[in-house]
Amino acid sequence: MSDGPALGPGVEFDRIRAIASALGRQASGLGDDCALIAGRPDTLAVSTDASVEGVHFRFDWLSHEEVGWRAAAAALSDLASEGAEPAGLLVAVTVPPSATEQALVSLMRGVGEAGAAVAAPVLGGDLSAGPAWAATVTVLGWAPAPVTRGGARPGDRLWVTGALGGARAALEAWRRGDAPADEARRVFARPEPRIAAGRWLAEHGARAMIDLSDGLGADAGHLAAASKARIDLALEQVPVAGAAAAEARRAGVSVQQFAAEGGEDYELLAALPVAFGRDGALAFERATGLALTRIGAVRRGSGVHATLAGRAIALKGYDHFR
Amino acid sequence: MSDGPALGPGVEFDRIRAIASALGRQASGLGDDCALIAGRPDTLAVSTDASVEGVHFRFDWLSHEEVGWRAAAAALSDLASEGAEPAGLLVAVTVPPSATEQALVSLMRGVGEAGAAVAAPVLGGDLSAGPAWAATVTVLGWAPAPVTRGGARPGDRLWVTGALGGARAALEAWRRGDAPADEARRVFARPEPRIAAGRWLAEHGARAMIDLSDGLGADAGHLAAASKARIDLALEQVPVAGAAAAEARRAGVSVQQFAAEGGEDYELLAALPVAFGRDGALAFERATGLALTRIGAVRRGSGVHATLAGRAIALKGYDHFR
Repeated sequence: MSDGPALGPGVEFDRIRAIASALGRQASGLGDDCALIAGRPDTLAVSTDASVEGVHFRFDWLSHEEVGWRAAAAALSDLASEGAEPAGLLVAVTVPPSATEQALVSLMRGVGEAGAAVAAPVLGGDLSAGPAWAATVTVLGWAPAPVTRGGARPGDRLWVTGALGGARAALEAWRRGDAPADEARRVFARPEPRIAAGRWLAEHGARAMIDLSDGLGADAGHLAAASKARIDLALEQVPVAGAAAAEARRAGVSVQQFAAEGGEDYELLAALPVAFGRDGALAFERATGLALTRIGAVRRGSGVHATLAGRAIALKGYDHFR
Repeated sequence: MSDGPALGPGVEFDRIRAIASALGRQASGLGDDCALIAGRPDTLAVSTDASVEGVHFRFDWLSHEEVGWRAAAAALSDLASEGAEPAGLLVAVTVPPSATEQALVSLMRGVGEAGAAVAAPVLGGDLSAGPAWAATVTVLGWAPAPVTRGGARPGDRLWVTGALGGARAALEAWRRGDAPADEARRVFARPEPRIAAGRWLAEHGARAMIDLSDGLGADAGHLAAASKARIDLALEQVPVAGAAAAEARRAGVSVQQFAAEGGEDYELLAALPVAFGRDGALAFERATGLALTRIGAVRRGSGVHATLAGRAIALKGYDHFR
């Protein structure tokens, strides 16, 4: 890619050349009609995810590079939840007429860096004018044994990686006009797709997985519906991001409910057989450097039943469609 | 898919269920984090393509169903140009707050029909709010021997499928405030990705291919740049859509130049060895029902050199980035 993609003359193609130059070795094979990937006997996992200015991000909150990172990380997180190994990503960017080439290159650099962090090169894309910034990222990965949302069985236990509520804490601060706490801002601006964690869990018996983008309550609901089972959540067990406590107090809810109703933390929720216990969690933590916390169980029935200190809590989802 | 995707409750998820219900058997496996496709030893070809309201289409020109068809067909055309067999598509749709569920379902029905016409199921997608309608379609296909833009060699001949200038004829009429001729409107609203043609050409020796989205002049420029060669085009040979003649007269250019500077016809431009002659073209026409016309040759050098009746013509590209 040192010469950049071989394209004819034109303003659009100059911008593509500038992007390829900035991406350097993070880009691979740009400039043909299709990206080409060597086939494999494994299952191919594919997901596409749009990030739209004013809906998923605002430039008074995030830099262009952070917007690009976040858009790519959110899409890559879907590969993590299948236990897939990334093969690469494609990104369709829509750019308003007033945008500079520098802003576009910064956004694409963020996309490239999020990909590079999990060995996913930028394989291709599309560049278009539009009324607002948007980045639609499509990710591809290979999974020897993909883990869907539908495999949880009554008796399984539910585990979650990392800590929840950080992204929501940042969002609530921004909406109020404040600067978020550093930790919360980092979770929102540069979420880390849990690729290594997803692969480890897939290799160690996970029966169902989903990444937490809609919030623990809503995503547990998807997993329950797909698995035709009921999920009981013990909210007192939910691991909570440090920055969530102050925001939960302002919101007048318990920090556990605040965290369980927040979205876009991009941690993984996994159903594991009951035999996967404390020892399993310790082995996971040694392998990945991440916490793994038991927060519930799968039962016969349907829906999500959350309790906090013995009291039933109706969890609200984090509905992006607004 | 008769029960629709298994998702938890929520407005966004209700819309996804309505889409899945309308797509019926054209959808496959919606509702997990990733679409899953069985791997193959062939090369995987992937492309992503955004269609944005006000840039690529307008609803006073096209119905929602036609917008969906056109967005999917434009993306599938990239598979055609690799000689790939479609495996499926994903679509990220951005919808303004005022949009009805009926409009969204119509658009997705158009996407599904364009896919079904070339045996490409809708494997997944994303639904998001945004300032305008947009549909970003990602297509996946398998190619035993993909044909890139870069394989043309000096001495090869250049051939084009179908006829050119129809989509531009529709566009010029709409821009003037007129209704386009039926044939021109059909080419613009429901372009047919040349999947069967692309596979036939790949199997019969095509060394390089590209689909005509930026216009013959610009796309020949991409093929020349990728192949590190010069392309000579004999414009008097260019096959011209019937509806282009009247629009070319209004524009004050020859119909051949009008057709060569128009974009979005989604025909294929292929470099074939000199031995592929009239007999090859006849066999192609018998197999696909499409015309195949010789319009130029590959030479040592660089750039595109077009002539009409012995006079050099500098072809303008059709730059979508506006």
